[in-house]
Amino acid sequence: MGFETTATIASFGGKLVKLKHRAESTSCDMSLNLYLPPQSNDQLVPVLFYLAGLTCTGDNGAEKGSFLRGASKLGIAIVFPDTSPRGLDIQGEEDSWDFGTGAGFYLNATKEPWTKGYNMYSYITDELPQTLFKEFSQLDGGRMSITGHSMGGHGALTIFLKNPSKYKSCSAFAPIANPINCPWGQKAFKGYLGDDQELWKEHDATELVKKFKGPMDILIDVGTGDNFYKQGQLLPENFDRAVKDHGDPSMQVTIRMQPDYDHSYFFISSFADDHLEHAAKYLHA
Amino acid sequence: MGFETTATIASFGGKLVKLKHRAESTSCDMSLNLYLPPQSNDQLVPVLFYLAGLTCTGDNGAEKGSFLRGASKLGIAIVFPDTSPRGLDIQGEEDSWDFGTGAGFYLNATKEPWTKGYNMYSYITDELPQTLFKEFSQLDGGRMSITGHSMGGHGALTIFLKNPSKYKSCSAFAPIANPINCPWGQKAFKGYLGDDQELWKEHDATELVKKFKGPMDILIDVGTGDNFYKQGQLLPENFDRAVKDHGDPSMQVTIRMQPDYDHSYFFISSFADDHLEHAAKYLHA
Repeated sequence: MGFETTATIASFGGKLVKLKHRAESTSCDMSLNLYLPPQSNDQLVPVLFYLAGLTCTGDNGAEKGSFLRGASKLGIAIVFPDTSPRGLDIQGEEDSWDFGTGAGFYLNATKEPWTKGYNMYSYITDELPQTLFKEFSQLDGGRMSITGHSMGGHGALTIFLKNPSKYKSCSAFAPIANPINCPWGQKAFKGYLGDDQELWKEHDATELVKKFKGPMDILIDVGTGDNFYKQGQLLPENFDRAVKDHGDPSMQVTIRMQPDYDHSYFFISSFADDHLEHAAKYLHA
Repeated sequence: MGFETTATIASFGGKLVKLKHRAESTSCDMSLNLYLPPQSNDQLVPVLFYLAGLTCTGDNGAEKGSFLRGASKLGIAIVFPDTSPRGLDIQGEEDSWDFGTGAGFYLNATKEPWTKGYNMYSYITDELPQTLFKEFSQLDGGRMSITGHSMGGHGALTIFLKNPSKYKSCSAFAPIANPINCPWGQKAFKGYLGDDQELWKEHDATELVKKFKGPMDILIDVGTGDNFYKQGQLLPENFDRAVKDHGDPSMQVTIRMQPDYDHSYFFISSFADDHLEHAAKYLHA
């Protein structure tokens, strides 16, 4: 269904639009932020999707990510979606910070009762862009890129690897790069997908990249001071190894280990411009 | 007393340091954020104080203000103090969002019971900088500037106008520029200073600038979509009129009415770079 605009906020010469709509894929109202750069006043602009991490909403990236300044300069619209359905009245949905509300993991659940609306994969790849492109004629549906942080970095990588023709580029901040081998991913996949670990692999970037057919050029930043990295929740080295083992020279992945940076939005802010430039290279090619 | 460092967060090549200390002027523990740009590793850097608005802490500007990128580039440290004492157990201290906790108005209270610790003027102009310059030898105590938002814009303007030799420059985002003539200011000044309106004038930028002896070069941004501006809480036109009536050509004030911008951190973010450049012109002169 169409959007209700709950606020329009001037920012960096463009505007941040706060939107709400009834989503069929998630069976609930979904809120999001859309940044329209000043260029969108008189031309088609490409679109970058920013997928946020555990516990976040569409507000965190818009408020704290330092993306808007660069998006204004480069003429890129940014979509900041929510991270899960909300208020579905599923038992246990509010019990954990890393499962249920705020933790949709960008997949379609196959296990009851989560099938009721935990379909963030369909929402992000189909329903949301379709609804956006229908209502905002200044957005160029033919030029989409995707990025994200932590759980959202997992989302960006897996969604790109499953739909390389749909997105011009992909990057990630501290992504959960091999969820089938980390506690966060195992908990989520068991909960949403059940016990069949073959199913899990379809939502694991490191597994997906093994079967990928190039070319690709993925930028990943991870902080060496990131406690979740140290705890083995992110495993970017496994993703890197899988790409190298693949041996296809058209598949490029640049993993930058950023000294001392943590998992916070101060880390994201510090490298937001680089990820925007990376996307711009392909969106404006 | 000295600082306890509660966190050190890498950001834009420098670091954001979260500090806490027991302050004598406010009779309580005070938290703040200090951004140290990369240049501070091997040279003295100047310092910009950012005073936040009603309901804020030292976190809002650091997380949402988009100051760190520019500060890193320009080699300026930024101090983000809290906006009031906290937890003094004064009756009524938590009753209003625009008086008491989170609303110290950067003055020294003369009325009981607020004299107990509502001395943000002394804290910001004396105790905090002294403590900082003692502990952080990379900060240049001879090069300070001041800026702020809303109530903090009032703070920046009044503190600068009362101490022009102490600060190299001053700017403000949507400042409460004539508090004795707006509801926020009248409530606060009556509460903290009592009924004698002559006392109020010593904390009113528009009154202070009438007696000011130049030179000065103040940058002020205000959004035309700012509801508090529309409600007459800010009154930048009164400040502008007072400067023009003064007739001293060495007293410059540039008030930019920014079309459609509101009172939020999206507004501050959009012009943070301009205010940093304004400060840098004097801090690096």
